[in-house]
Amino acid sequence: LAALPKLAVVLISTRNPLNIGAAARAMSNFGFTDLRLVSPYSEAWKEARSAVGAAAVLAKAQVYESLAAAISGCRLVVGTASLGHRDLRLDVRRLEHGARMIRKDAGPVAILFGSEKYGLSNEDLSRCHWLLRIPTSAEHESMNLGQAVALVLYELIRNPRTPQRQYKPRKATAEVLERMEEILGEMLRASGYTQAKTEASSLLKLRRLLRRMNLSARDAEIVLGMLRQIRWKSKVG
Amino acid sequence: LAALPKLAVVLISTRNPLNIGAAARAMSNFGFTDLRLVSPYSEAWKEARSAVGAAAVLAKAQVYESLAAAISGCRLVVGTASLGHRDLRLDVRRLEHGARMIRKDAGPVAILFGSEKYGLSNEDLSRCHWLLRIPTSAEHESMNLGQAVALVLYELIRNPRTPQRQYKPRKATAEVLERMEEILGEMLRASGYTQAKTEASSLLKLRRLLRRMNLSARDAEIVLGMLRQIRWKSKVG
Repeated sequence: LAALPKLAVVLISTRNPLNIGAAARAMSNFGFTDLRLVSPYSEAWKEARSAVGAAAVLAKAQVYESLAAAISGCRLVVGTASLGHRDLRLDVRRLEHGARMIRKDAGPVAILFGSEKYGLSNEDLSRCHWLLRIPTSAEHESMNLGQAVALVLYELIRNPRTPQRQYKPRKATAEVLERMEEILGEMLRASGYTQAKTEASSLLKLRRLLRRMNLSARDAEIVLGMLRQIRWKSKVG
Repeated sequence: LAALPKLAVVLISTRNPLNIGAAARAMSNFGFTDLRLVSPYSEAWKEARSAVGAAAVLAKAQVYESLAAAISGCRLVVGTASLGHRDLRLDVRRLEHGARMIRKDAGPVAILFGSEKYGLSNEDLSRCHWLLRIPTSAEHESMNLGQAVALVLYELIRNPRTPQRQYKPRKATAEVLERMEEILGEMLRASGYTQAKTEASSLLKLRRLLRRMNLSARDAEIVLGMLRQIRWKSKVG
């Protein structure tokens, strides 16, 4: 994944301090630090309760009186928009594609989020090079502000080229499976589950079943221990 | 994009009703409807304030006393986890990969989210087939619950194969660009910007500049109108 351009999250006229906190927290989660606030409604934004782990981002956040001041220095300004903005004659890109364009940009980039109630104003939109749209359903289009910030930042750091699994358990070896088969086969014979006539086919089914279980080395050892204990107890009992 | 399997969002021991509302809202945004709550802490969850547009999901939500009851009928149970769960000997998949596996699954699928404070308990985790991890930074790993739900559901409906642009403006035709060049060239000559000696090279630069602007048909008409008006006024004045 190429290095991301410098990126500022710009929240405009945010009403609910909780949303500023949530945006700051998502920024911390995904490694972004430059939060800019344009005329937030409440002076209480710094005390936002949901800002667990976002103290550093909030402490560094800058407040501006105008959007023009907040985006000074940025070379790409991207607004977040809903389907309702389709008639603006601005390019509207779905998040999947737009994030890719932002990643490729030389930056600095500003991403704008409007107020909870009204979104971005026409005045704000006129300062955008293009718009980003989160692909929500047409019936329930409007997203929570903190969630929208989290989604946009996640899409920016998203990397499908990481290893598929974080933890790869080693599989059971063939010998261990043979040993399990042997003990289980013996127990099934002793219990009368398998009959002399059908024993061969039953054991074949058992062998396949054990392979389908796709046991890890460790789990196979646990199962083997259980089987041994049960066999021992049933012989004693 | 293949049809998604049936999918339930299961919130376990959620403390903050706002988070239940936020989860329900994200479900509405991305077209999911099956919300299951295991022993939520507050009876007030249905009144969650942030549940704008999530009324239908909340009204349908079921409350269960145990996780076992909540996941009854599900064939794949996926927990959401953080890096701290690496030692559980459960497969931990990054969201990008895990979501792909869920999309391919026949379902029904349950996705579990633990409480804000403690996440999923060992008891909860023991009912999971594998774990999903949102790739947050190691220093600020813990996500807000509502944001985590939104991210997981977004990744499930994410579709990079949609058209790149929602709105494709038609570009200006070559004739319109020629006309702009002609009028601008005339104005630049009249104003003394271009000199007889360098006029040819100035016009070449202008022609290239006009192409780099990559104007839409509509914007080109607007600019042309502006130029005509300015030329007319300056002749009159």
